[in-house]
Amino acid sequence: MIYVSLISYTPDPERTIAAAARVSTSPVGATKLMEKLTPEAVDRLLTQLLASGHLSPFEHASFTFAIEGISRVTSHQLVRHRMASYTQQSQRYVSLKKADYVTPATISARPELEAKYHDMVRDCHRLYHEMLDAGIPAEDARYVLPGAMETRLVMTMNARELIHVCSLRLCLRAQWEIVALFERVKAEVERVAPRLGAELKPKCYRLGYCDEAESCGIFPTAKEVSGGK
Amino acid sequence: MIYVSLISYTPDPERTIAAAARVSTSPVGATKLMEKLTPEAVDRLLTQLLASGHLSPFEHASFTFAIEGISRVTSHQLVRHRMASYTQQSQRYVSLKKADYVTPATISARPELEAKYHDMVRDCHRLYHEMLDAGIPAEDARYVLPGAMETRLVMTMNARELIHVCSLRLCLRAQWEIVALFERVKAEVERVAPRLGAELKPKCYRLGYCDEAESCGIFPTAKEVSGGK
Amino acid sequence: MIYVSLISYTPDPERTIAAAARVSTSPVGATKLMEKLTPEAVDRLLTQLLASGHLSPFEHASFTFAIEGISRVTSHQLVRHRMASYTQQSQRYVSLKKADYVTPATISARPELEAKYHDMVRDCHRLYHEMLDAGIPAEDARYVLPGAMETRLVMTMNARELIHVCSLRLCLRAQWEIVALFERVKAEVERVAPRLGAELKPKCYRLGYCDEAESCGIFPTAKEVSGGK
Amino acid sequence: MIYVSLISYTPDPERTIAAAARVSTSPVGATKLMEKLTPEAVDRLLTQLLASGHLSPFEHASFTFAIEGISRVTSHQLVRHRMASYTQQSQRYVSLKKADYVTPATISARPELEAKYHDMVRDCHRLYHEMLDAGIPAEDARYVLPGAMETRLVMTMNARELIHVCSLRLCLRAQWEIVALFERVKAEVERVAPRLGAELKPKCYRLGYCDEAESCGIFPTAKEVSGGK
Repeated sequence: MIYVSLISYTPDPERTIAAAARVSTSPVGATKLMEKLTPEAVDRLLTQLLASGHLSPFEHASFTFAIEGISRVTSHQLVRHRMASYTQQSQRYVSLKKADYVTPATISARPELEAKYHDMVRDCHRLYHEMLDAGIPAEDARYVLPGAMETRLVMTMNARELIHVCSLRLCLRAQWEIVALFERVKAEVERVAPRLGAELKPKCYRLGYCDEAESCGIFPTAKEVSGGK
Repeated sequence: MIYVSLISYTPDPERTIAAAARVSTSPVGATKLMEKLTPEAVDRLLTQLLASGHLSPFEHASFTFAIEGISRVTSHQLVRHRMASYTQQSQRYVSLKKADYVTPATISARPELEAKYHDMVRDCHRLYHEMLDAGIPAEDARYVLPGAMETRLVMTMNARELIHVCSLRLCLRAQWEIVALFERVKAEVERVAPRLGAELKPKCYRLGYCDEAESCGIFPTAKEVSGGK
Repeated sequence: MIYVSLISYTPDPERTIAAAARVSTSPVGATKLMEKLTPEAVDRLLTQLLASGHLSPFEHASFTFAIEGISRVTSHQLVRHRMASYTQQSQRYVSLKKADYVTPATISARPELEAKYHDMVRDCHRLYHEMLDAGIPAEDARYVLPGAMETRLVMTMNARELIHVCSLRLCLRAQWEIVALFERVKAEVERVAPRLGAELKPKCYRLGYCDEAESCGIFPTAKEVSGGK
Repeated sequence: MIYVSLISYTPDPERTIAAAARVSTSPVGATKLMEKLTPEAVDRLLTQLLASGHLSPFEHASFTFAIEGISRVTSHQLVRHRMASYTQQSQRYVSLKKADYVTPATISARPELEAKYHDMVRDCHRLYHEMLDAGIPAEDARYVLPGAMETRLVMTMNARELIHVCSLRLCLRAQWEIVALFERVKAEVERVAPRLGAELKPKCYRLGYCDEAESCGIFPTAKEVSGGK
């Protein structure tokens, strides 16, 4: 089970973004802007910035998440996003007591394969412990652990990067586990910053069409759009 | 006058860093760690991380500053630090009503030069306004404004980068205005995160010697250290 | 006069990008791909990558430019692009012998203002030298130099960032001097990598509409497009 | 077997770095510097830059490597270095025909464990293919593949980051497979840029002591050094 918890974030994130943005064109300083901006003014400013693609002020608000229960398959993908900070549980130093692992739904749906999958993952975990007991260092024994094994990490991302990453990873053609992860990330952000949370959405909602080779059905592809004229 | 105000930051920044760091080797998740870590444990962990150079957990705490009254000379230097976010007052869109500018102490100390300096900067500012009044766009009229002119910006930096930048910019051989800027940045951080604030110090305090060509006198240079043996 | 010269770059940049891209889906290694890909295959691959927005392989080709004759106004804007490397002439250590500076066309077009502008910039430069002669350090004397003063730098950018920066800075609503700079950057890239050079174009060419508040006239704005239906 | 091949790099990388560095203090432009700098001058400049820690000019030279035969365990670690570009073989789209995998030496040294390890990895790979044949998508079937499975990627890193990463990853206390990888990276760089290649070395060679908790024996730890006085 994926578990995502927002453990820390820039307080009043939307006001911080708006105050920073106003500094570039305002004769008043940011400290005063933090006090004076009304919720309506904040909302209006964020909408303007998003419409015009001036996203750099969104970098001033950061969000720190505790993430648990994702597979190593998915954490390997996740850390490819370089505009973020990650501290991940080390398989080098921490030996995995319990065989916690992720099972894809396509496998769960097939009882005969599912049984083999469960057996195999547990056998790997059993050999891992046998090797540890025989004195093999954890950093080497882990080579036998499958990509399904769960990991845990802390991730900090600013709002600009969250908007960008969600535009890619909430796309239904992205890998299902990373979609599920960012759906929970979005839910956590929405709780404390609803206007910003609403902007965490797949790219097609912004583009008005799908730029993948094949659409999931929500929006037509660019080809279908232009072909229809 | 340089003015620096911490307008927003990750709440409980030192605990956030410590909780993130523990995730890599702990069987407990980050959410529990945020609750359970005692102030002493946080302090001990930060000291260990700093001693061993494991600085990546320091990226999970961010600080957002309103900065006013620095010259364009210094803002040009400042934004060369790429691991940070800046939103700066635009000279393209905002016309500078008042001639606010910075005067280096070496010039203030020489009355005959100081008078010429003041006249020149004000003459530039006067021509700037004459051009604006004659219909020259602000983005072009500003070419005549000197580097001394004050600017204002919002800067967000995480704690890892603050440690790094201060190690360079609190060095007394750095340019005096950027030293003054980061002394105020350090004072703001110390107010809310004393353990972290104490780590914002010139590189020589960490190295135990000066790695510049010539020392300011606080520490001997590397050459002097090895030559003394 | 802006002067841009490509002093070094990844040899065979388009083939390098294509070979890297193929690695993600090919059973053959990158070394073989570098030898075997025909010019047509390279071209086809680049077109596919661009159409689908898979731009990360474009990071494997880098371009290093010597840039001279841009104003400090423009270099301050330029270095805000953080995904690049810059080494700039230091006004701290190098004293500017000659008064080389940039004059905006809107000022040149107005003889009475132009004369005042030239006089003012030269007066600033003269006071700068008077202060140097009187023993003021270059790092302080430069505070009186106007933003018009020319600077020189070396910039390295990879092809992905070049595509991104040109999409913003070749827009005719960008500041005229930075437009002129990136037109020369584009010309240099086109000389050695025509397919890639052709992709260095303002964002509207990619979007099919203008997303600025007001269009320069080449493409209608998003509002005009949707309003027309 | 790890295979590393330098498939592309900034031509004349050391001269490019030196020319860029000279621009900051020279009255001559970078284009002339590229022609005029003698090999001795290049060497002298690089030595000065390294001694004084002015490493930013090293960003102007980039190196692109084809890497094959490393485990997914190691590629997951590798891509944590964010100042680099990676294009990796996708386990989502490419199904792994052959069971190519890495075996740690501590396991090879124990025949009874080695046999079990080989059987287990091959069993995983067999189940992976059984699932593919039964219609499970590759992106899900791969969850059963162990971290030992080989992967292939293209990596581009500039010389500054190579110096930094090698200072960490050539340390004998780093994970053995990533040490082996960067030993080959270093060998490839040395072939075309010997002065730079010589700088790719563990941090202790630069510090003069070991800053890990326990030394590998080449240098004493910081504690041992200060305790000896």
